[in-house]
Amino acid sequence: MLCFLLFTAAASFAAADQASPALNASPDAQMQQKKQTIAFVIHGGAGTIERDKMTPEKENEYRAGLEQALKKGYEILLRGGSSLDAVETAVRFLEDDPNFNAGKGSVFTSAGENELDASIMDGKTLKAGAVASVKRVKNPISLARLVMEKSSHVMLDCAGAEAFAKEQGIKLVDPKYFFTQRRWDELQRDKAAKKGGGAGTQNFVSDQDRHGTVGAVALDQNGNLAAATSTGGTSNKRPGRIGDSPIIGAGTYANNATCAVSGTGDGEYFIRAVVGHEVSTLIQYRGMSVTDAAEQAIKKVGELGGTGGLIAIDREGHVAMPFNTSGMYRGRVDPDGKFIIEIYR
Amino acid sequence: MLCFLLFTAAASFAAADQASPALNASPDAQMQQKKQTIAFVIHGGAGTIERDKMTPEKENEYRAGLEQALKKGYEILLRGGSSLDAVETAVRFLEDDPNFNAGKGSVFTSAGENELDASIMDGKTLKAGAVASVKRVKNPISLARLVMEKSSHVMLDCAGAEAFAKEQGIKLVDPKYFFTQRRWDELQRDKAAKKGGGAGTQNFVSDQDRHGTVGAVALDQNGNLAAATSTGGTSNKRPGRIGDSPIIGAGTYANNATCAVSGTGDGEYFIRAVVGHEVSTLIQYRGMSVTDAAEQAIKKVGELGGTGGLIAIDREGHVAMPFNTSGMYRGRVDPDGKFIIEIYR
Repeated sequence: MLCFLLFTAAASFAAADQASPALNASPDAQMQQKKQTIAFVIHGGAGTIERDKMTPEKENEYRAGLEQALKKGYEILLRGGSSLDAVETAVRFLEDDPNFNAGKGSVFTSAGENELDASIMDGKTLKAGAVASVKRVKNPISLARLVMEKSSHVMLDCAGAEAFAKEQGIKLVDPKYFFTQRRWDELQRDKAAKKGGGAGTQNFVSDQDRHGTVGAVALDQNGNLAAATSTGGTSNKRPGRIGDSPIIGAGTYANNATCAVSGTGDGEYFIRAVVGHEVSTLIQYRGMSVTDAAEQAIKKVGELGGTGGLIAIDREGHVAMPFNTSGMYRGRVDPDGKFIIEIYR
Repeated sequence: MLCFLLFTAAASFAAADQASPALNASPDAQMQQKKQTIAFVIHGGAGTIERDKMTPEKENEYRAGLEQALKKGYEILLRGGSSLDAVETAVRFLEDDPNFNAGKGSVFTSAGENELDASIMDGKTLKAGAVASVKRVKNPISLARLVMEKSSHVMLDCAGAEAFAKEQGIKLVDPKYFFTQRRWDELQRDKAAKKGGGAGTQNFVSDQDRHGTVGAVALDQNGNLAAATSTGGTSNKRPGRIGDSPIIGAGTYANNATCAVSGTGDGEYFIRAVVGHEVSTLIQYRGMSVTDAAEQAIKKVGELGGTGGLIAIDREGHVAMPFNTSGMYRGRVDPDGKFIIEIYR
């Protein structure tokens, strides 16, 4: 089973350079290809990540975290599981890893608290779930999925989101759970820098530690795409600040007709550029490849003055991972089933 | 001055049936046309609005409120003011009118509170501001504009948004300000209906009173488009529920290259269909007219199972106001400067 799937995944990846082959194929061939193709990509944030400022130990920790998350999600796809399960599982794992700016490793607001955002979208039904500004939810991505599946709403924030979590049997954690010395020190540095005249209006400073939003996109055996994103936001953000991660169409978007997208970077610019939906519509209405569409969307973010990156998979399993920063923590499975973890450009 | 502007506004409206005439015109002609065209449309919500359930008195109140709001915004445009000022002013006026579900007339959450959402977008710069789940802000649309202009963020929610309001000199009101007997009675009816087995997962019931989100879109003399939307959300919503109104790309979107859009309806479906940005990309990437693009976006909402409508203006001043409900409170200025207020299909 495993070998068969790895082989067929390879077969579909080999076709990655062709322009939308399934669009011209017969319905039977399309079905055949859909059944066989699986694809999985994750990210752990884009930003100013420079090799000479990274210790080998730290780099190994990041790589190990990404590889584990990739493995957990990909195994679900190999077993024939759903893209929704794969993206939720991988993001959940990264939320528990203190190295990434989501869940346990979330940055602090200017008030010294942690406020977490996450969202998930199902490309088959276009159903979506999102949570914003939650302070006591260990795994916001799983709460976002519950919002999608168990509420009549798409998005819940603050105390209302936490009340829903309790109703759904999620044990809330003490906000202290999210304390990490590294992020606390980062907040103090950011505050000092701002005092010195750092940040202006919709103008953001990136640094080695600052980023780390996590996300995953997947295509499962049934041709269903899904996307998930989770974040602690930006260090020293105002309390109540919502970035692009929980915004459907901006930081997260999935549609079986086009692609699945998860973004990371200066969230304000990703919202203004409606990045996820932009990639989707460039594919759908302009006939672009996912590579060109994703690059154009990141270019648009750059033109507005923002930095960041995204990961995307189209419905044939083609993958794009553009970013306009010096690095993006990212992982994917290559055509012969090998895990590729990359950090720098 | 007034006569001249009314005449030129008429001239541009007369060209409404041509497909994007400015696209083929010389740069000078484009500039000329941009300078001359102004356009303004507002809405006060779409939903099940039936003539036989409306008293003449109530209908007159709605019409008077819409006409006043239309006048206030349009006068700004006539005087050469900005589209941003026009949309903020009109929406602010409707927020103060208890007949509409925004500001003063906001519906109640299932917890018996009022939680307000709003957003605004500048088509020239693609800058945007949004607030969600605020409980003590009389005019959320003006706070959204301050978020856009005076913060480094695009979106703020809950207590953080209110703290920002205070910093900006906005006096917070007692939550009791938002109490209206009509909306309170509506909540009791909605609760009774739900107990009887009304609402399911992402499946919403509409009724005569329920809707009333307000919004405005404008094109000013300088060719700048802007959009603004404000709402109390849906009656009996979960505390913390965020709909499409404060989501850039969903309930609100503006881009000088394409159009300005404000939506109203079942917000969850508008988020999933990324309605505002969908209209924009259908114009930009498919070359559709604003009429066709807006209708297609509402059709997509309907296919997902949602109801509602939107108002849109493109960069030449062409107007679209599609809805798939029995009515939408709406107002626009016709080619000879006459105010047209409509409610039913």
